Amino acid sequence: MDIIIEIAGTMAAQFQKPTLAFLMGGMALAAFGSKLEVPEPVYKFVVMLLLLKVGLGAGISVREADVVMLAVPALCAAVLGVAIVLFGGQFLARWRGVSRMDAMATAGLFGAVSASTLAAGMAVLDGEGIAYEGFIGALYPFMDIAALVTAIVLARMSAERRAANVLQGDGTATMTVGGNIGSGGLPDGVDGAMVRNVLVDTFRSPAISALLLGIAIGLFARPDAVYEGFYEPLFRGLLSILMLIMGMEAWTRLSELRKVAHAYLIFGLAAPVVHGLMGFGLGLVAHQLTGFSAGGVVLLSIMAASSSDISGPPTMRGALPEANPSAYVGTSTGLGTPVAILSIPLFMALADIAIGF
Amino acid sequence: MDIIIEIAGTMAAQFQKPTLAFLMGGMALAAFGSKLEVPEPVYKFVVMLLLLKVGLGAGISVREADVVMLAVPALCAAVLGVAIVLFGGQFLARWRGVSRMDAMATAGLFGAVSASTLAAGMAVLDGEGIAYEGFIGALYPFMDIAALVTAIVLARMSAERRAANVLQGDGTATMTVGGNIGSGGLPDGVDGAMVRNVLVDTFRSPAISALLLGIAIGLFARPDAVYEGFYEPLFRGLLSILMLIMGMEAWTRLSELRKVAHAYLIFGLAAPVVHGLMGFGLGLVAHQLTGFSAGGVVLLSIMAASSSDISGPPTMRGALPEANPSAYVGTSTGLGTPVAILSIPLFMALADIAIGF
Amino acid sequence: MDIIIEIAGTMAAQFQKPTLAFLMGGMALAAFGSKLEVPEPVYKFVVMLLLLKVGLGAGISVREADVVMLAVPALCAAVLGVAIVLFGGQFLARWRGVSRMDAMATAGLFGAVSASTLAAGMAVLDGEGIAYEGFIGALYPFMDIAALVTAIVLARMSAERRAANVLQGDGTATMTVGGNIGSGGLPDGVDGAMVRNVLVDTFRSPAISALLLGIAIGLFARPDAVYEGFYEPLFRGLLSILMLIMGMEAWTRLSELRKVAHAYLIFGLAAPVVHGLMGFGLGLVAHQLTGFSAGGVVLLSIMAASSSDISGPPTMRGALPEANPSAYVGTSTGLGTPVAILSIPLFMALADIAIGF
Repeated sequence: MDIIIEIAGTMAAQFQKPTLAFLMGGMALAAFGSKLEVPEPVYKFVVMLLLLKVGLGAGISVREADVVMLAVPALCAAVLGVAIVLFGGQFLARWRGVSRMDAMATAGLFGAVSASTLAAGMAVLDGEGIAYEGFIGALYPFMDIAALVTAIVLARMSAERRAANVLQGDGTATMTVGGNIGSGGLPDGVDGAMVRNVLVDTFRSPAISALLLGIAIGLFARPDAVYEGFYEPLFRGLLSILMLIMGMEAWTRLSELRKVAHAYLIFGLAAPVVHGLMGFGLGLVAHQLTGFSAGGVVLLSIMAASSSDISGPPTMRGALPEANPSAYVGTSTGLGTPVAILSIPLFMALADIAIGF
Repeated sequence: MDIIIEIAGTMAAQFQKPTLAFLMGGMALAAFGSKLEVPEPVYKFVVMLLLLKVGLGAGISVREADVVMLAVPALCAAVLGVAIVLFGGQFLARWRGVSRMDAMATAGLFGAVSASTLAAGMAVLDGEGIAYEGFIGALYPFMDIAALVTAIVLARMSAERRAANVLQGDGTATMTVGGNIGSGGLPDGVDGAMVRNVLVDTFRSPAISALLLGIAIGLFARPDAVYEGFYEPLFRGLLSILMLIMGMEAWTRLSELRKVAHAYLIFGLAAPVVHGLMGFGLGLVAHQLTGFSAGGVVLLSIMAASSSDISGPPTMRGALPEANPSAYVGTSTGLGTPVAILSIPLFMALADIAIGF
Repeated sequence: MDIIIEIAGTMAAQFQKPTLAFLMGGMALAAFGSKLEVPEPVYKFVVMLLLLKVGLGAGISVREADVVMLAVPALCAAVLGVAIVLFGGQFLARWRGVSRMDAMATAGLFGAVSASTLAAGMAVLDGEGIAYEGFIGALYPFMDIAALVTAIVLARMSAERRAANVLQGDGTATMTVGGNIGSGGLPDGVDGAMVRNVLVDTFRSPAISALLLGIAIGLFARPDAVYEGFYEPLFRGLLSILMLIMGMEAWTRLSELRKVAHAYLIFGLAAPVVHGLMGFGLGLVAHQLTGFSAGGVVLLSIMAASSSDISGPPTMRGALPEANPSAYVGTSTGLGTPVAILSIPLFMALADIAIGF
């Protein structure tokens, strides 16, 4: 009984957070037919500032970390980010009616990291007096960027492949093109060039450009003063604006999800635990190889379990505008984040059993 | 003699305030033919942020107040807001040459509340050691929103009715439409639908949508951190930008007022005192019914006397773009606010005589 | 050897500053073909806010200064600003291939003042316990505005004259216009009207309008609260955005400089020292006439030596959009500022010899 009350309490607290409140506010405005709108140029600038901030923060935290100590856990984090997106995308795309674009955007958000869920995990460990490595805060960008880039590249490639198939279909009908067809049902040559094109397009896209620029400046320059005096303070507010915009758009596209809502519901409830267990497994390996602490293993699990509420939505909105925010923001912020927060005690119990604090 | 010096000093201090300084700066730029302009998308965003802030602040203050204690004074405040707009609109529209749109926008601003005039009143009471209810800060949104919505709906309805009359004129000329004509000279059926349409349009307008969204999020969520860290600090600055824009526009439309300036001058000087006395009267009723304190009665009078320098201009500019800001901002910020500040001692003396501190 | 290490260190520190880091980041993005862009309306607003801030700060500091004490040094500062632009523009325009527009924009930036270089000079004097006048902070706007306006007016006039010459050439070919030709090869009447037109256009341009509006409000109103709570905190961040934009543009126009890079290199290395010596000479005159302190003479030299990294770029970008930011921002921020900082000890030694601390 207690656990149900706790779950309900966590869900209610989540819905009162400005992030979700502005999202639902945007949906309510759209439902009511409000003519409020955020002009496109302002929206683009808001997204740019948000992603510069995320990048700068990540770059600064990596610059301040010990590179040697960071190497193995950072690799684990990046591998986890890619793996979660691959599994999540597969799981979601298998349901009839789930668009591949929406599946990859949702999997990308679940692979990326929620800084606030991570902070909640750190607070719990601090409260219990459990030690963890100081570089943990520099770990999350590796998982975050790996997951977001993987999801965008896979979504773009699948769109390209579909477009090429349509072209191919037309071609065969009229010209009966012969030639060596690769394993994917596509001419071998096209596939290699396509991957390169999609990768270049992804890194050139405004969202990923801004993110990488922020990381580079955070790593190689000293933007700490402008970060703390400008990007940091504006961040929560600009995020509230972004959530408002995404809420308005989510409402208009909610009906698309009517037939596939159960797929997102199952994914949103199960994925955080599954992803967390993947993080726990890889954390155990790092523990065996490099003496990664039990507290560190718990935090790596929480990172894997969490889904991005900050870097993810603006990145996806910028890089995959066709994807439906009702699907990816709704599933990650509405379901994934509360479930991830609730599963913190599970990862602590597992670490206590497997390693011991 | 002393009083004239005091009035001149209050006026001078008012003109040095950034709000009015930027307004006059905008007028000077326009007069000089400057090509400085605030791009439309930025302007829309600035108004949206200002109104979200006003709404959030109002919602948070109402959420933190005691609902039971608040009920009667809040009703009084809302009634006052509506009454001031009705009387003010009547008074101004009676002058030949005053446009109905400008009259309603001006009356709306005089019905709405100036938070800074209210704060000045609180400071005077605090200085004199006079007690007042803690929920007073949660009272002003009721007067504010009631006045602004009433003014916008009445202005919109009068515009619709004029448009319908023109149509009706055309109709009778060519088709001699027969039917039951209501008291307003319009078919009854049209009138009811028109009121509903205008109300729906008003609530759907970007300005009122943003205001109500802010109130809803302030009431039902916990946006306090983003409010204090983003909306609050940006507010004064964005208001300076809005004032600059309104000043530039006011200059270009100043000539429209040449023949009706005396009407606005008389209204701007007399209305704060008349409205304050209306507030005093209703405050006395609340005192008799619910024991509303003498200090509370003074502050309700000041609220009624004050005219909005913050929530009003962006709301009117957004919801009634046809109205002339030279008229409504000039009259309210240039005349109404200094007169309201100067009449604070009057309401204190009246409360001391009628109730006693 | 030590001095080379120090120079290298100062250069490296300069490149790690956010200003230059964002400029180079923008260049890197453009080089990589990124599709990131700052929408035009947002860019215009950013420039407006930056220039309002510069103006407000200047106006406030002049308002707070003692006008009588300020008069002579302020005149010296303004004369220096004009003189540096005249000499610098002549020097640069003499090189074959250097566009007159770019020459004037660069000279304008070298005539304008870097607040951070000035602050570095004050810190050195404070560290050595050397006294200087309290109004020095109010001196820099006179040099700054004088230099920027001179550069813009001269650039605009040279563009007009070229356009008129072309017209004149066409005219003589077809109509053989006879008449009194002035010293500049232009009809006398045209020249006077042209100067007036260019001056009016300059003061009406968005950049100079915003700057002057800020100064006027800073001088005559009390915008201190909105300045400290809004314009000041946003400044560094908005400047980082401007630098990003200018970097992207600078990259696309870098090739224009291939043949004239040596001219800017020589100017960037030599001008700060030459300008500083001009400032030192005029400072000595002021010392003889009004007892201007030795510390004040050092700071006037530093102001003259410094080149604007804050007020200059947005002003030039706004008022002379044809000028190439690779030339003026690159030369001033990349070369002029580090050289000016490194020459601080030189001006201190000279003042010690000539006046004595």
